[in-house]
Amino acid sequence: MKTVKIALLGFGTVAQGTFNLLQDNANLIENRSGVTIEISKIFVRNPEKYSHITLPSTAKYVTNIDDIVNDESIDIVVELMGGTTFAKDCVESALKHGKSVVTANKDLLAEAGPYLFDLAYKNKVDLRFEASVLGGIPIIRTLYESLGGNHITELVGIMNGTTNFILSKMTEEGLSYGAVLKEAQDLGYAEADPTADVEGLDAARKLAILASISFNRRIFFEDVTVEGITNIDTEDISYGKEFGYNIKLIGIAKETSKGLSLNVYPAFVPLTHPLASVRGSYNAIYIKGNGIDDAMFYGRGAGSLPTGSSVVSDIMEVAKNIAFESTGRFKPFYFDQKNIYSPGKIQSSYYIRLAVDNKTGVLAKIATKLAEQKISVLSIVQRNKDPETAVLAIVTSKCPHSYILNLIDSFNSLRSVKEVSSVIRIMEA
Amino acid sequence: MKTVKIALLGFGTVAQGTFNLLQDNANLIENRSGVTIEISKIFVRNPEKYSHITLPSTAKYVTNIDDIVNDESIDIVVELMGGTTFAKDCVESALKHGKSVVTANKDLLAEAGPYLFDLAYKNKVDLRFEASVLGGIPIIRTLYESLGGNHITELVGIMNGTTNFILSKMTEEGLSYGAVLKEAQDLGYAEADPTADVEGLDAARKLAILASISFNRRIFFEDVTVEGITNIDTEDISYGKEFGYNIKLIGIAKETSKGLSLNVYPAFVPLTHPLASVRGSYNAIYIKGNGIDDAMFYGRGAGSLPTGSSVVSDIMEVAKNIAFESTGRFKPFYFDQKNIYSPGKIQSSYYIRLAVDNKTGVLAKIATKLAEQKISVLSIVQRNKDPETAVLAIVTSKCPHSYILNLIDSFNSLRSVKEVSSVIRIMEA
Repeated sequence: MKTVKIALLGFGTVAQGTFNLLQDNANLIENRSGVTIEISKIFVRNPEKYSHITLPSTAKYVTNIDDIVNDESIDIVVELMGGTTFAKDCVESALKHGKSVVTANKDLLAEAGPYLFDLAYKNKVDLRFEASVLGGIPIIRTLYESLGGNHITELVGIMNGTTNFILSKMTEEGLSYGAVLKEAQDLGYAEADPTADVEGLDAARKLAILASISFNRRIFFEDVTVEGITNIDTEDISYGKEFGYNIKLIGIAKETSKGLSLNVYPAFVPLTHPLASVRGSYNAIYIKGNGIDDAMFYGRGAGSLPTGSSVVSDIMEVAKNIAFESTGRFKPFYFDQKNIYSPGKIQSSYYIRLAVDNKTGVLAKIATKLAEQKISVLSIVQRNKDPETAVLAIVTSKCPHSYILNLIDSFNSLRSVKEVSSVIRIMEA
Repeated sequence: MKTVKIALLGFGTVAQGTFNLLQDNANLIENRSGVTIEISKIFVRNPEKYSHITLPSTAKYVTNIDDIVNDESIDIVVELMGGTTFAKDCVESALKHGKSVVTANKDLLAEAGPYLFDLAYKNKVDLRFEASVLGGIPIIRTLYESLGGNHITELVGIMNGTTNFILSKMTEEGLSYGAVLKEAQDLGYAEADPTADVEGLDAARKLAILASISFNRRIFFEDVTVEGITNIDTEDISYGKEFGYNIKLIGIAKETSKGLSLNVYPAFVPLTHPLASVRGSYNAIYIKGNGIDDAMFYGRGAGSLPTGSSVVSDIMEVAKNIAFESTGRFKPFYFDQKNIYSPGKIQSSYYIRLAVDNKTGVLAKIATKLAEQKISVLSIVQRNKDPETAVLAIVTSKCPHSYILNLIDSFNSLRSVKEVSSVIRIMEA
C-alpha cells in the first residue's frame, strides 16, 4: 500500500484533533482510502510545550519550517497555525515545492485564496480547505462537488456558534442578552471581547467564502452588509414566538436579477423552517439550487475533533490523488462576474415593535402611516404596558428596506409614538 | 478542454432530470469540472415515446445496448433504468469494457453491489451511486469521503418521503392514517399498493445500503428488523405532542458492544432533536461519529431534478477522474466483520397507551406490574374516556424490548385492562 507522508504546521486544538483521529482511526482510514497516512513532522515553536503527548515513532517535532518545505519525502503540508503572514509564506512555499496543502485557515483564504488556488493549479498539486469554514460540517466539498451540477440561487445559514448559543438561551430561558453573554464568556463559548461574534463579523467572513464557491465569484468580507445581535431584546423574542418565529443570526447570499445580495443580520425564522430548530452552538447551512430544490447541512461548526474530521477527510482525498497521480484537479472557481446588489433594495417582511400613547385613535394613525408607505400588515398585536403606554408589534408584508426606513421616519414624526423599539427582518419560509 | 462522452440507459423521470441539468447548467458544469460532458447516446426501447424532447445535436437514441457497450468513444454509462436483471447485464458489460458507470439503482446495488464494486476496481474504472439512496441528499459521498476519517457509531434517519408525508399530515391536521393515505395516493405521493412504503420495506432497503457504507460491512435488507406505520393512531400522536414528541418512521443503525443493531420502526422523536422538524416529503440522515460528534443532512429524497443533481455530480466526478486518468479509485468498503445484534436486546424508552377500567385502584395495579418488571415511569397521563373507561399514556425509562413484551403480557393478564392500544419506542435525544 502506498504511504503518504504528512507534516502538521502548528499543534493547537485543531491539529491535536486531527492528530488524534489519524491515530485512533488509522486502520479505518487506511482501509477506506487505500493509502497509509504517516505523520512525519510537526512544526512548532516550542516542542517542550507538548512533551505530554506521545508521538508515533515515525513523527518528530521540528522548529525550522525549512525542514518541512525542503524535505522531498513530505507529500502533504497541513497548515493549522492560523494567521495570514507566516502561514501564507509556508503555504506558498509548500505549493511551489510541489507539495499539496490542507488548511483550516479562513483568514488566509479570504486574503490570498485566488492567488494560492492558482498557484496550486499551476503546480499540479492540491489545496484543500474543508475545515476553514464551519468545522465539522462538510460544506465546502458539498458545494463544489456534491452540488456541483446545480445553479445555486440562495445560501442561508447559521454560521456562528456563539451567537446561536446566546440567542437559543435567551429564547429558551427568557434571559437577557447581557446575562447570557456573561454566561457564555464564563463557559468559554464567547471571547472576552465578543465583538467579532456578536457584531456578525465572523459570520460575514464565512458567508464571503461560502458565497464565493456557490456563486463562482470572489466575494470579500467588505461585500457583506452586517448587523449584529446586541440590540435583540427578550421582549422581541417573546412577540416573535407568538407570531411563530425563532430569532437567529443568519448569513444570507441570494441571487437576484440585479446581482448578488450578501447580508448578515438577526432575523425571525418561521418555526416551520428547518433552520428554526438549529439550537445551541450548532451551525447549519440551507441551500437552494435548480437541481436539488432545497437541502440543509447541520452539525458542529467548531471544536477540536469535528474540525479535525474535516482536515482528515481532506488529507485522505489528497492522499488518494497522490496515489493516483492526479493532484491539481481542483479548478479555481472564480470564473463568473456578478454585481453585488445594494441591500436597501432587497424585499423582506419586517417585524416592528413600537411604544405608543395608550389612547384611542393611535392605532389609526399608525395604520395610516403604513398605508401611506404602501406597506400592508400581516399581523398585529397590541398590549397595554402601563396606563400611559401601549406596545404595538407589527408584522408587515414584503417590501424593500428603503420603504421601512421611510416608515420608521414617519412613525418618529408622530407625537403619539414614544419609541420605535425594534425592527427585525423575517426570513422567507 | 477534455470532452467526456456519456450514454444514458433509460429516459424516465430521473434520466430526464439528469438530461435537463446537463443541458441547462452546461457552462457551469464545464467551468466547475474542467471537462466538457457530451451526451452521446440514449438507450430506450421505443424512441418515438420521446419525440417531444429535443436532443442536442451530439445525441441520438439507440435501441440496441451493444451500440453503447461496444462503442469505444463512450466513457461513462449512466444506468437509470432500474431492475436487477437487464440492468445488471448492462452495468457488468460496461465495466468489463472499461467504461465507468454511474447508477441510481438501489435494488441493483442491494443484489450485486460487492460483485460490481470489485469488478469496477479490477477494471480500474469508477462505479458511483450517489442517486441510488435519498435522491437529492448527497449522503453517499458524505459518508465515504467527507466523513471518511470518522468511526461512525450511529446513523438514524427519515428515509421514506411517503410515510413522512403521511405522518406529518396526521400530526399537523389531526387526520386519520386512512384519510391521509388516500390523499397521498390521489396526489401521487403514495402508490396504489403502498406496502413497500408504509410497512417500512423501502426504508429498510435504504438503511441496508447506508449502514453498509457507514459500518464497512455488507448489510442485507434481511438484517433489518422492520415495523411499519399502519397502526399509528391520531390519539397516540396527540399524547406524543403532550409529552414533547413528534412521530416519525425512522431507520436506525447503531453500533453496540455486541454488534450492529438495524431497525426500522415508527418512533417518537423529541421535539428538541433536529429530526423532529423534518416535515412532509423531506428526508434527513443524522449521524454520530467519533470525529464530527453529530451532523445532519436534509433534503429531497426523490424527484426528477434532485435525483438528477446527484447523478450529475457523479458524472462530473467520474469525468474529472477520466481527465486525470485516475478512475478506479473507489475502494470496495466491505472490509469489516461485525455481528448483527438481536433487536430484542436493544434498550429504549417506550410509550404505552392502555384502555383500563375507570375505577379506583387500577392505576395501583398498573404501577405494580411496571415495578415487577423493573421498569420505571418517566411520565404518565390519565384521562377519562367515558364513565367506564380511562386511558393511560405512559412513558417508561430505558429498558430492553424483551422487558416491554413481558410487561404487555402482564397488562393483558389484568382484568381491569381492557386493551393495550399502542406501544411506540422513543428515540434518544
